[in-house]
Amino acid sequence: MAKRYAVILAAGKGTRMKSKLYKVLHPVLGRPMVQHVIDQLKPVKPDEMVTIVGHGADKVAEYIGEDSETVLQEEQLGTGHAVLQAEDLLKNQEGTTIVVCGDTPLITHETYQALCDHHEREGAKATILTAKAPDPGGYGRVIRDDQNQVKRIVEHKDASGNELLVDEINTGTYCFDNKALFEALHHVSNDNVQGEYYLPDVIEILQNRNEKVSAFQTADFEETLGINDRVALAQAEKSLKKRINEQHMRNGVTLIDPDNTYISPEVVIEADVLIHPGSVIKGKTTIKADAEIGPHSEVENCYVGEGTTLEQSVAKDSRIGDRVQIGPYSHIRPEAKIGNEAKIGNFVEVKKSSLGDKSKVSHLSYIGDADVGRNVNIGCGTITVNYDGKNKYLTTIDDDSFIGCNSNLVAPVTVGKGSYVAAGSTITKDVPEDALSIARSRQTNKEGYASRIKNQKKD
Amino acid sequence: MAKRYAVILAAGKGTRMKSKLYKVLHPVLGRPMVQHVIDQLKPVKPDEMVTIVGHGADKVAEYIGEDSETVLQEEQLGTGHAVLQAEDLLKNQEGTTIVVCGDTPLITHETYQALCDHHEREGAKATILTAKAPDPGGYGRVIRDDQNQVKRIVEHKDASGNELLVDEINTGTYCFDNKALFEALHHVSNDNVQGEYYLPDVIEILQNRNEKVSAFQTADFEETLGINDRVALAQAEKSLKKRINEQHMRNGVTLIDPDNTYISPEVVIEADVLIHPGSVIKGKTTIKADAEIGPHSEVENCYVGEGTTLEQSVAKDSRIGDRVQIGPYSHIRPEAKIGNEAKIGNFVEVKKSSLGDKSKVSHLSYIGDADVGRNVNIGCGTITVNYDGKNKYLTTIDDDSFIGCNSNLVAPVTVGKGSYVAAGSTITKDVPEDALSIARSRQTNKEGYASRIKNQKKD
Amino acid sequence: MAKRYAVILAAGKGTRMKSKLYKVLHPVLGRPMVQHVIDQLKPVKPDEMVTIVGHGADKVAEYIGEDSETVLQEEQLGTGHAVLQAEDLLKNQEGTTIVVCGDTPLITHETYQALCDHHEREGAKATILTAKAPDPGGYGRVIRDDQNQVKRIVEHKDASGNELLVDEINTGTYCFDNKALFEALHHVSNDNVQGEYYLPDVIEILQNRNEKVSAFQTADFEETLGINDRVALAQAEKSLKKRINEQHMRNGVTLIDPDNTYISPEVVIEADVLIHPGSVIKGKTTIKADAEIGPHSEVENCYVGEGTTLEQSVAKDSRIGDRVQIGPYSHIRPEAKIGNEAKIGNFVEVKKSSLGDKSKVSHLSYIGDADVGRNVNIGCGTITVNYDGKNKYLTTIDDDSFIGCNSNLVAPVTVGKGSYVAAGSTITKDVPEDALSIARSRQTNKEGYASRIKNQKKD
Repeated sequence: MAKRYAVILAAGKGTRMKSKLYKVLHPVLGRPMVQHVIDQLKPVKPDEMVTIVGHGADKVAEYIGEDSETVLQEEQLGTGHAVLQAEDLLKNQEGTTIVVCGDTPLITHETYQALCDHHEREGAKATILTAKAPDPGGYGRVIRDDQNQVKRIVEHKDASGNELLVDEINTGTYCFDNKALFEALHHVSNDNVQGEYYLPDVIEILQNRNEKVSAFQTADFEETLGINDRVALAQAEKSLKKRINEQHMRNGVTLIDPDNTYISPEVVIEADVLIHPGSVIKGKTTIKADAEIGPHSEVENCYVGEGTTLEQSVAKDSRIGDRVQIGPYSHIRPEAKIGNEAKIGNFVEVKKSSLGDKSKVSHLSYIGDADVGRNVNIGCGTITVNYDGKNKYLTTIDDDSFIGCNSNLVAPVTVGKGSYVAAGSTITKDVPEDALSIARSRQTNKEGYASRIKNQKKD
Repeated sequence: MAKRYAVILAAGKGTRMKSKLYKVLHPVLGRPMVQHVIDQLKPVKPDEMVTIVGHGADKVAEYIGEDSETVLQEEQLGTGHAVLQAEDLLKNQEGTTIVVCGDTPLITHETYQALCDHHEREGAKATILTAKAPDPGGYGRVIRDDQNQVKRIVEHKDASGNELLVDEINTGTYCFDNKALFEALHHVSNDNVQGEYYLPDVIEILQNRNEKVSAFQTADFEETLGINDRVALAQAEKSLKKRINEQHMRNGVTLIDPDNTYISPEVVIEADVLIHPGSVIKGKTTIKADAEIGPHSEVENCYVGEGTTLEQSVAKDSRIGDRVQIGPYSHIRPEAKIGNEAKIGNFVEVKKSSLGDKSKVSHLSYIGDADVGRNVNIGCGTITVNYDGKNKYLTTIDDDSFIGCNSNLVAPVTVGKGSYVAAGSTITKDVPEDALSIARSRQTNKEGYASRIKNQKKD
Repeated sequence: MAKRYAVILAAGKGTRMKSKLYKVLHPVLGRPMVQHVIDQLKPVKPDEMVTIVGHGADKVAEYIGEDSETVLQEEQLGTGHAVLQAEDLLKNQEGTTIVVCGDTPLITHETYQALCDHHEREGAKATILTAKAPDPGGYGRVIRDDQNQVKRIVEHKDASGNELLVDEINTGTYCFDNKALFEALHHVSNDNVQGEYYLPDVIEILQNRNEKVSAFQTADFEETLGINDRVALAQAEKSLKKRINEQHMRNGVTLIDPDNTYISPEVVIEADVLIHPGSVIKGKTTIKADAEIGPHSEVENCYVGEGTTLEQSVAKDSRIGDRVQIGPYSHIRPEAKIGNEAKIGNFVEVKKSSLGDKSKVSHLSYIGDADVGRNVNIGCGTITVNYDGKNKYLTTIDDDSFIGCNSNLVAPVTVGKGSYVAAGSTITKDVPEDALSIARSRQTNKEGYASRIKNQKKD
């Protein structure tokens, strides 16, 4: 197979984004748009990827460092000038160079692949990726000749009446013969109103030499959306969301409302999972069969076991076992490890703690920096007092123990196996196995005092 | 009126659902799709309903047991073969038999009624329910003759150029003369590529005998959507949601965003109720006038009284009085009974408890297995300690009492009328009427100790 | 410039709303629809605005009292009769009178302005605001003559075949020469089926006198939607939401899902704010750059500082500083003032309290009526006991102090600078600066008692 190269144009400032953040780093479904472009280019197997970045784009270089070379375009002198920055890296190579925009995150690898295949099969020096636009106004039109090859690309403002009727538009994505590309780029001039070097001029240069210029039309115009402002960013988010959600549904996942379900690309979900509306699932998350998520839950970087439910809750960077019940209104913070058939009820926070199989924390508790065994019942309002203002300490609660409501376990402390902490106790010393531990005052009832108190109070 | 019978074809495996769950049991707005079909058939008043189910469909039989006979189709030999399974139950009857698919939950009883009426008025032996499809590709086309009667049904793949232009499609729903149906079914052959007995072949058999075959076109193509995968399931959910939500709006309910409001079919809502986005209302729920639900609330099987608000909260299987304020972030669990003008604030869980009129549980409390009177003020952080690891016990709090913050009421225990529990107390014995009860330690201030502690701590 | 007057027709009962609430008071994005109309009329600078209201409309008069005169239409005798109620206030004025419906909240001031400008430039006696309807069925059609002036307005039911093909419709909004309007209104008769005096009859009267009647066509039909039931109300909400959200996006605000983001008109949001789905932002709220709101947060009448995050939380009538972290599941109630870099974690309620810079309330706490200094750490489960059943009292917590978990601070009480409250203490007296304060019982471990307890318990 011919060698392939990719040049990603990512130097545009994106002023219409009105952002401090570099345009191509704006995320779509949680991933920078340029990362989507790179991810979709990978299956085309380019031998080298070069991303052209602009000034102040250190963050882009940093972000994509492993996936692509980056080259700085010092001044923004047009798309032709941008591609030329890759010359030092690519000019002596034989093969195909695909030039793509860093702000078109929706183009799929199938489309890139089909474009390259078409280009190579046709033996063209250049191939333009085109699409039929429902409303072509504003786009450059691709005018074909009698042999269905490209006659010319004409900008909207320069188009004749007949040309304006053409709805096949230039998406700004191209394949080139690599050597022809860099040779021709040196003949592109900036003799135009903006004083810029335009990449499409290469097409005309090649045509003037009677080189073959082809066009490959993709079926899905929506894919080719370029993002110039946040309205388009939201459209891209919606399109990609739809694509991902349909894939999950076809795989056997029930989404009650796919319009209102937000799943990032790298999430893995098994069949017969049920996802309620308003759920946001991100990062390296795996959800096993028969789990039920939402409504309105957030899950990020979690493993969620079979048959587990997570209702109106937030879970991040944690591992949750099988048949666990969580929520509503609980918060699983990073480094939690929840055993099978455990229960986390409402208004519970778990942080950097493990909870054994079948243990329960049903209400209004904070379990932080704790190692909790199996079959433990943690009463309502229990708090692991893990912080003294300076350091954090561990709490250990052994199997089969019972922690009474509103208890404080002042770490470092160990509650032994099968022991029993009385409700309302503040536990500061270890509790031996099978012990009852109690730390509270005797109750005194002062009869008739309630009305006296009420009368005392100032109005 | 002629007798009517209904046959529901529900034996399809639904492999494209990729599910352990039987296809027709997949819910749409919380009800299995076959249940929607049955519910919409009932107003047509069939004298007998027969549902044809496949192997392993015990759950279908179990589910619809009261509404319809079920007959097992041992092998999946085609739709004609499926209908034939009803022969023992129906063959000797005079009248009209409507044959419907168990996976078309959106067809309304008005449409079924209109189809049957048309069939009977026309005196046809068979009538096909048709619809105009915006994009008829893939569907069987209904070709009419000069008298506007059905000439033939032609599958997409067998259609001629002119026939492909026809946009009237066969929805797969039919009325038949009952006797003619079962007689003709015996002449259907499986001499085709799939080796199956097809129900539409009955049409051709009747036509060959010069029997009258009519077609009734329904205006709403969307209604006739058949569900074969979870993408279609989500579409059905959306269509049905839209239909139900519009009905509520026309009845005087304000839905801020009907696209983002999820109301099940059996829910009853009075006029001048306001429902905020993200709300999910299910089961046998009634919401009285001037109530305000959401945003992001879940209500299931509840009675919600007049003027009650339920903001960002979850309520299930409970009865909530008039002018009650709940939320944000509270959880009303089954068997709660909340009196009029009560207040349930934030981070409060109520379970299997009654709360009298004008009583307040404003923050961070758990009220479980409790009987709380009127005008009771339950302070922040109060917990009814209802469980000792083995059994659950009741807490009784009489009228006009005041429970101080962070108190534990260790059940079984009674707090008498008008009494006062001091903040931070763990109450284990009954508190008499009008008593002040206190169970806490004296405060000691150790001056200068705070900095000593800080210096002691290891870094 | 000519003087301008505005008459708002707001007397319609709106029976199809099925509501106790007067039709024009139904809110769209949180503001009564008539208020939207008034707000959009203001830039047209009418010298006087007169709103015609119906019986029982005291609330309308009360609501818009400052913005517009209101005149009562005692009986509902038609739109012509309604305008005539303004006669006493307007009849002797020279100038332009714009007559608008109180139930068209989507018409923008640009459209009103363009209509008035057109009317005055044309020197017409009357000008009709028209629009091209995608589906004109049911609307009055505007029939133009050869000079492109209005020939007549014809109701749908009276239209000829050719007239039915016209898709330019009468929106019900007009400009008139003020004197001509009131003079002509006296010639309108109620000799029709409904027995009503119709405003459009003025057009015919003026035409019969050969006065110039013009039409101004607005480009956006959607703007002219009149709201007669709650289905249309929801459509208006959606349209206005879309308009506002697009404006924010163009200003540099990222909305992950604009379809599922609810922002009221008066909200101010700076560039590079990120808003997650399900968020509802209302009232006089300002959100500074780099803040992140949602998912599923509610913000009303708040100032939210730079870089602050508010995840799955509710905040109302409060001021929140820069780089504050809030949520998930916290509730900021009115009159809270949160300092910079403070942290409010999960299940925390703050009410009528100030919290100094860098102070933390991380979990399960209630801070009410409190004045909390800087660098204070408030442990999990801390409660300010601000209410004794009769009055509310203040808690003061000075800088650098540390409040142990599950503490009660019984107000009125002051915790001195740098002091330390031990976990589980109920503090009733002031704590001096740098003191350690403790109020709890010693722990007793009773070995072997846990199993004895378990055996005692009844099954």
